[in-house]
Amino acid sequence: MSRFTIAALALAASLPSAVLAAPAYDADGRLRFPNDYRTWIYLSTGLGMSYNAVAMGGEVFDNVFVDPVSYKAFLETGTWPDGTELVLEVREAQQKGSINKSGHFQGAAVHREVHLKDSTRFKGGWAFFPFSDETPAKMIATTADCYSCHQAHGAVDTTFVQFYPTLLPIAQEKKTLSASYLADEAK
Amino acid sequence: MSRFTIAALALAASLPSAVLAAPAYDADGRLRFPNDYRTWIYLSTGLGMSYNAVAMGGEVFDNVFVDPVSYKAFLETGTWPDGTELVLEVREAQQKGSINKSGHFQGAAVHREVHLKDSTRFKGGWAFFPFSDETPAKMIATTADCYSCHQAHGAVDTTFVQFYPTLLPIAQEKKTLSASYLADEAK
Repeated sequence: MSRFTIAALALAASLPSAVLAAPAYDADGRLRFPNDYRTWIYLSTGLGMSYNAVAMGGEVFDNVFVDPVSYKAFLETGTWPDGTELVLEVREAQQKGSINKSGHFQGAAVHREVHLKDSTRFKGGWAFFPFSDETPAKMIATTADCYSCHQAHGAVDTTFVQFYPTLLPIAQEKKTLSASYLADEAK
Repeated sequence: MSRFTIAALALAASLPSAVLAAPAYDADGRLRFPNDYRTWIYLSTGLGMSYNAVAMGGEVFDNVFVDPVSYKAFLETGTWPDGTELVLEVREAQQKGSINKSGHFQGAAVHREVHLKDSTRFKGGWAFFPFSDETPAKMIATTADCYSCHQAHGAVDTTFVQFYPTLLPIAQEKKTLSASYLADEAK
């Protein structure tokens, strides 16, 4: 058995359970912070993106991650199963640092937001949970703009798969693009 | 056993071996393309970054991933073991698309480059391999600028950990920052 095989087995045995587990709520229905989301599957990054009336304020990076179980399901089906957790991580955009001469690189994380699918709990199937730290978070009320915008423009099941370049071709192939997204694209 | 536990076990059993394996060379010493690097650990993204005399041309995103075994070793030691593969993925930066109104999001991947540590093979411990597609790649000659720049300015063991916000604090804590980086910072 090689050194690498041994290391691989040790890693598999030590994978934190949160990486592969269902979302967990506390007794008051608040969502627990997904501590290990940085070991989940990376989907994409934007810089300074804005697509609704209220911009996030300042030019920031946004990174998106998804739990590995739901990622695997998406590869097979082109859509998301119950239990899907998408994490939006917002980071400062820095310009001056070390030997960088132009462009932007990522600084501190300033906000996280989880978009969670659980049709047994949420009307419409999904809910948003904002985290300013690792304290369990209350869901955002369904009257907020994020729900209507994701519903009206998300490419797959109210999620912005049109901005995830490795997933969009799968949704096209599996024909899981939403009617509202196809209508947007036909304009 | 819950549905999620079963799914987690199924995922662990089906993880592609490349995710956890040592780098593989072909008979001519070319490095095989790491097909599954998008399931590796994400480190960070820049947009339009440039820190040597020759910029990459145009404003592009660069995403960096590392194999999970070496990531785990870094968390424990603050430096990289032999077998470390860092993948730089360069993607087009798009502005117009769907409902996006400002900023940039990621388009097609246009280039990948692997930075590989294998002290049994490479003078200085590391080598770069450029991939324009998934064909095995020849290493870049050690006379290229990338080697001297990484050597002179990389925060940890010739790698740009100063641009990986989740790893820099670990290197600070483990005191693995390079003398050349500390000298840069003291200027």
